Amino acid sequence: MKKFKEVAGNNTSDLSEMNRSAIVRILQQKEICSRAEVAKMMGLTQASITKLVGALIDMGIVSEVGIVKGNGNRRSIGLRLNAEKNLVIGVKFSRHVFAIGVFDISGKLYTQQETEYSLNDFAEDVIASMKEQIHKLLKKYKNVVAIGLAVPGPYLRGEGRIAMVTRMPNWRTVNFIDEFKHEFDKPVFIEQDANAGALAEWWFGNHDRPLNSLAYFLIGEGVGSGIVDHDRLLLGNLGIASEVGHISIDYKGPVCECGNRGCLELYCSTMALLKKAEKDLPELFEKPYENRAEACARIFDAARAGNKKAIKLVNEIAEYLGFGCVTLINAYDPEIIVIGDSIAQGDELLLPTIKKIVEERTLKAISSNVRIEISKLKIDPTLYGAAAIATDRVLRKPSEYLTLNKD
Amino acid sequence: MKKFKEVAGNNTSDLSEMNRSAIVRILQQKEICSRAEVAKMMGLTQASITKLVGALIDMGIVSEVGIVKGNGNRRSIGLRLNAEKNLVIGVKFSRHVFAIGVFDISGKLYTQQETEYSLNDFAEDVIASMKEQIHKLLKKYKNVVAIGLAVPGPYLRGEGRIAMVTRMPNWRTVNFIDEFKHEFDKPVFIEQDANAGALAEWWFGNHDRPLNSLAYFLIGEGVGSGIVDHDRLLLGNLGIASEVGHISIDYKGPVCECGNRGCLELYCSTMALLKKAEKDLPELFEKPYENRAEACARIFDAARAGNKKAIKLVNEIAEYLGFGCVTLINAYDPEIIVIGDSIAQGDELLLPTIKKIVEERTLKAISSNVRIEISKLKIDPTLYGAAAIATDRVLRKPSEYLTLNKD
Repeated sequence: MKKFKEVAGNNTSDLSEMNRSAIVRILQQKEICSRAEVAKMMGLTQASITKLVGALIDMGIVSEVGIVKGNGNRRSIGLRLNAEKNLVIGVKFSRHVFAIGVFDISGKLYTQQETEYSLNDFAEDVIASMKEQIHKLLKKYKNVVAIGLAVPGPYLRGEGRIAMVTRMPNWRTVNFIDEFKHEFDKPVFIEQDANAGALAEWWFGNHDRPLNSLAYFLIGEGVGSGIVDHDRLLLGNLGIASEVGHISIDYKGPVCECGNRGCLELYCSTMALLKKAEKDLPELFEKPYENRAEACARIFDAARAGNKKAIKLVNEIAEYLGFGCVTLINAYDPEIIVIGDSIAQGDELLLPTIKKIVEERTLKAISSNVRIEISKLKIDPTLYGAAAIATDRVLRKPSEYLTLNKD
Repeated sequence: MKKFKEVAGNNTSDLSEMNRSAIVRILQQKEICSRAEVAKMMGLTQASITKLVGALIDMGIVSEVGIVKGNGNRRSIGLRLNAEKNLVIGVKFSRHVFAIGVFDISGKLYTQQETEYSLNDFAEDVIASMKEQIHKLLKKYKNVVAIGLAVPGPYLRGEGRIAMVTRMPNWRTVNFIDEFKHEFDKPVFIEQDANAGALAEWWFGNHDRPLNSLAYFLIGEGVGSGIVDHDRLLLGNLGIASEVGHISIDYKGPVCECGNRGCLELYCSTMALLKKAEKDLPELFEKPYENRAEACARIFDAARAGNKKAIKLVNEIAEYLGFGCVTLINAYDPEIIVIGDSIAQGDELLLPTIKKIVEERTLKAISSNVRIEISKLKIDPTLYGAAAIATDRVLRKPSEYLTLNKD
């Protein structure tokens, strides 16, 4: 038997940190709360909360703000998270573009910038440019406490590299952990794009809470998913759990670059949609398109204008999205599935077909308990997700990370 | 926004209980350990461990046993879990049979009994007989601290009922929580069969530890899976996450009773295997078989004896099991997949084909990091799993449950 490391012990300072983290996470969601409300939500005495909040105020993480009305019209002092003093930098790295944004831990955007590159560019040059931009932002924004990086999956988070880079040969040997570990005097956290999107919905999405389980269904150039189950990202052994894009929907189907056959990604990525559209609806693409998201928008616009071929195409894709949702339900039993990335532009054109498929292909006791929605986030979910990666980590250890800028 | 309940606070008595639980779980796996070893594994000071262990000894949960040799030949007092003072009753409920066993929390079997029934029997009568047997065992075995019940999935654990009982119409209205909640003066915990099997492997399987993530792949009359990810059962919103048997491998395939098409269960359950075998190998079934497990054994025996038709059938099933493993890998990224229930009899006949399919259909960086094994448990994994359900719960709250029999 190997050394047994699964069960870590906790001491009283771990306990205080867990409880401070719980308070900070409640305030991140509720904006303003009284001590009494926090005590009730956490099931602790008001005396304990008063002590914990006192420490958070001393650390500069929480402030008192005015008076809020509580039960029975009692007036209490409000508490809020000093979000603006705790910024995070989110970095989205994808196949043709990288984007960098500065956010605070409440999800407020301060600035964002995007850089296109070619897959023929040397990876080192692209990374050098990314680092330079981050350094500049760190100079300008002094209150950054952490950096989150979202990379395409399957990303082996222990090793620091992307497992499948056949479409990005120049990136084969890049180790993201080595590249970023010592580059900045801020911690850098890295996860794959769909997990980032799931965290963006978890922290910055305006969903009914509490939420037992959320599935983010990313449909862009690739197809992926991220699962937050009972307040924790589902990671698996290597950090690549929930690769729904590579779950087969037809074991005799076409071969995917992952080796599997009939991967969902082959049927409903924006690449699959555009391939069909360029054949069936060439008139839409006489004018060259800027990027795939814009090209998809033309298809949805044509469907909205009543173009029958476009409507047929959109319905086909929606069916595959429905099969994907059925797989997500059987695999993870989520309370909510949020569909995001480029395909989200299809919105009301897609949802009825998706819901119909789910109703047909799952038991009523199950389908009636899952909400299926299109993401309502106003910011690119992977970039926002990169910020959410950092936010998630710093909110779980507030005294370690949220005091970085305090003297 | 609904009331925020995701983030519970912990007080110092919660902290002590977490740490006592960690110690008890280590001892459940390691059998005998010194205080110094436990301290090292948990990352706590020896003084803290001494205090925690003192409390566990006072509660009668842990005992000192002789002298163990530690690092540098230092001799220390050994600690062991008083497993024999903490028994659990496991109850496996399945379509034609229920089984009841008495175990201790180390997984040692004391007694087991099996009762067959017909699907035409009234559910009330079957349940009454089950309760009567449990009451008798409780009279005989005084040290029982909890009862675990494993039921067929999809089991809605919040509601207490099985969502799909088309093959068991008499069971449609049975609510397991209502039936068992107040029946005994011991707590009763209920989960679905594949989750039970996953917990059996987690607590009683002899696997290399630490283990980040384990998938139990149940192939019996039905097909299911249970996932333990980072020490926690994956539950989802309703408790029915990881229904791999109803993940489709062919979206145009035959219709399943769940509503989906091409569900994995339709291709590789023992029912699917037997249906084919009765057609292709009628000579094996001239003598009627006792149960499906025995019928499967005949097919595997024939294959081992060189019967070509049997070999072909077994290889076909193994391919589907391979597709199932590929789905499990893409969905959960497990460190180990353990295949159990009736199909496990196929053992060495199945594994090479399963592994070949996994190597072909996943990236090498992934397939080389997952172990695929046939369950080596000597006890029916669902019955053993029922005991593991109870064991899992009592080990997480030792002072609440493991002191039930102490005066």
